[in-house]
Amino acid sequence: MTSSFTLSLPDWVTSFLAGQPAVFADLNSRMKLAVTLSSLNIEHQTGGPFGAAIFDIAAGTLIAAGVNIVVPGKCSLAHAEMVAIALAQKILDTHDLGSQGTYQLVTSCEPCAMCLGAIPWSGVKSLVCGARGEDAEAIGFDEGAKPDNWIDHLHRRGIETTCDILRQQAAEVLNRYGAKGGIRY
Amino acid sequence: MTSSFTLSLPDWVTSFLAGQPAVFADLNSRMKLAVTLSSLNIEHQTGGPFGAAIFDIAAGTLIAAGVNIVVPGKCSLAHAEMVAIALAQKILDTHDLGSQGTYQLVTSCEPCAMCLGAIPWSGVKSLVCGARGEDAEAIGFDEGAKPDNWIDHLHRRGIETTCDILRQQAAEVLNRYGAKGGIRY
Repeated sequence: MTSSFTLSLPDWVTSFLAGQPAVFADLNSRMKLAVTLSSLNIEHQTGGPFGAAIFDIAAGTLIAAGVNIVVPGKCSLAHAEMVAIALAQKILDTHDLGSQGTYQLVTSCEPCAMCLGAIPWSGVKSLVCGARGEDAEAIGFDEGAKPDNWIDHLHRRGIETTCDILRQQAAEVLNRYGAKGGIRY
Repeated sequence: MTSSFTLSLPDWVTSFLAGQPAVFADLNSRMKLAVTLSSLNIEHQTGGPFGAAIFDIAAGTLIAAGVNIVVPGKCSLAHAEMVAIALAQKILDTHDLGSQGTYQLVTSCEPCAMCLGAIPWSGVKSLVCGARGEDAEAIGFDEGAKPDNWIDHLHRRGIETTCDILRQQAAEVLNRYGAKGGIRY
């Protein structure tokens, strides 16, 4: 009986991150990292056009990065946000990031229904989005059924959302993937 | 840099499953397995009071089982349904269970917002729930913000939902966990 599963970032991520600065001072620099991850993920053909990262909000330090590895990882849960959350929790040794500090999830595209549902459980206190859900849907990805006013729902749970950071650059990666005929799911 | 994470079922699950029948013919027998998993998970103190399993709908064979391992696994994503989905996808070697057959997710409690969002991506065609979300909320668990009419949303995606199978037995496990003062999240 198979009783465990493992998800791993593509090999290129480690060397890419080794060349990054120690501090990402502003939202644009943090989103640039997420969008670059999304772009490199399609260049390396290691998954879908989505990248995400968890930062310490005040210090600007990178805690963990994620990319979409659904198809190569053979796991529908392996969206970029989920991978980043799971790795950050492993690194900080807790199921609740909020117990260890004040962290931010930066994602190259608005979270789908699953990732949106995962955000309150993760313990992050801030969500920053690049492309909009409609940008992903425009190339054939499905965002799922989200509650109306999902930003308000997060706010009531103490999680602040900022949208449209580098939206154009993030959407350009999606469009590039779409034009190449990449798998949608 | 930590670049992978692994989630594992508690050790007792393998020997428990070894004693199970080859075929679970009806919904009650499938739910009994999920509820028993939820109950054993609190008896063994290996996680929250939730169990789930993936079955081949027509054959009634068990593909994979899951229990909530959020706290011991240090991973907020590790709800019973998510663990069962990921293991089934590993076993069937695909990110889309719908590409391999017609599968059913049986869960001891209605899915939270995250697990609900994950269901369409998993490829299962049927969802069977024991306890209601309100039963989990009654002992302090948070179900998250689900869209109104979530059963209709699943139906429109070709996923049929059946609720209240062995609800009383499933809720009894939740209440036992609540009475013991188990961690809620």
